[in-house]
Amino acid sequence: MIALSPVPDITYRLYHHPLDPLSRRVRLTLAEKGVACDLFIENPWDPSDDLVALNPAGEVPVLVVVEDGRQQVLADAGAICEYLDEAHISPALIGKDPIARAEVRRLIGWFDRKFHWEVTVFLLGEKALKRLTGTGEPDSVLIRTGCHNIHGHLDYIAWLTERRNWLAGEQLTLADLAAAAQLSVIDYLGDVPWNAHILAKEWYARIKSRPSFRGLLGDHIAGFPPPRHYADLDF
Amino acid sequence: MIALSPVPDITYRLYHHPLDPLSRRVRLTLAEKGVACDLFIENPWDPSDDLVALNPAGEVPVLVVVEDGRQQVLADAGAICEYLDEAHISPALIGKDPIARAEVRRLIGWFDRKFHWEVTVFLLGEKALKRLTGTGEPDSVLIRTGCHNIHGHLDYIAWLTERRNWLAGEQLTLADLAAAAQLSVIDYLGDVPWNAHILAKEWYARIKSRPSFRGLLGDHIAGFPPPRHYADLDF
Repeated sequence: MIALSPVPDITYRLYHHPLDPLSRRVRLTLAEKGVACDLFIENPWDPSDDLVALNPAGEVPVLVVVEDGRQQVLADAGAICEYLDEAHISPALIGKDPIARAEVRRLIGWFDRKFHWEVTVFLLGEKALKRLTGTGEPDSVLIRTGCHNIHGHLDYIAWLTERRNWLAGEQLTLADLAAAAQLSVIDYLGDVPWNAHILAKEWYARIKSRPSFRGLLGDHIAGFPPPRHYADLDF
Repeated sequence: MIALSPVPDITYRLYHHPLDPLSRRVRLTLAEKGVACDLFIENPWDPSDDLVALNPAGEVPVLVVVEDGRQQVLADAGAICEYLDEAHISPALIGKDPIARAEVRRLIGWFDRKFHWEVTVFLLGEKALKRLTGTGEPDSVLIRTGCHNIHGHLDYIAWLTERRNWLAGEQLTLADLAAAAQLSVIDYLGDVPWNAHILAKEWYARIKSRPSFRGLLGDHIAGFPPPRHYADLDF
């Protein structure tokens, strides 16, 4: 009889929406860590009672961790990704030095917050959420605002990657995943002006070709398909 | 001659605004850690060239760390507070267990984001920022919205502190500082309905009486004084 060291029995469940950039950030982090996870779709605009029971904020993403029969509920994309980096240490996605970790987190904040409010809410909100929720016609002024604002962010990605291998330094980090998660949603809408931003496109091509990205590239919302280039690695 | 072990020569400079809740969160964290810091006031609605050079987002708070003559710039309140918890390990303000750390960060997100957008932007924006920037009269509908929304958050604080000593568990954490930072700004405006929320008031009285809070209670914006109870520990 072979003595095996006890392996904790851990399973994960993620409540998410395919077009929610913060849910995508968690999915990318899970995949980079090689952590298997069951996915459950929730509509953030109409959270189920189950979701509200798990997260009183009624928001996705929510990660349920079941370890040896005991269930723990984690909410907030930032909290979830930091947890995954602490509980699954390889590959390290924030780094070790406190100053370098602060730079990773600064850029996460940039994309989770600044990009989100300057680009994603305009384009995702007008072009997708209004259609999916049946709440009116897209506002062309707001769409133009989002399309205008994205240029500065793509320029910033170029500026960073001219100086560093990845956004926050020499290694891929959660900052790259945060930026790619937001951009992948805008790319699903067909609204990233890649050809005007060659350096940002080169960075995105590198991250898009990683195995961790495959799940996102397979997303397909019923009645709201992505453009043909969305899943194409040679876009 | 006494041999001293080498102590790195570290100084800190914080660029902040007294009524910015995220700046207040960093000031509370610095004070809880016992870290001395020079403070420089910036107006977030009109960032100086110096601030933009330090932080291309043009936002406060920004922490400049000068160690042995080498300057490092940290931006984003979340990144700064996580850095301070890593670089100054005592007292620990996030805890050790990954699941418990995720709960601290979930609640930080709740107050930095949810409370901020449901309460602070309405009350601070209408009552203070419009006056400080001379951009019109307060909108009473938006003020009523903020005053309505704060009740749910104070109820949630009560719900948490009925089950835990502090918001995220038995120890004071960054979650308490995030919540107190937001509430302290609303309290400066005189808009926290403390007497309708006795449990939340008891929690706030405990945190308000900590030495780390003294700096915030001494804030006084020229031409925009706080109500008398603001600095009163027996409010």
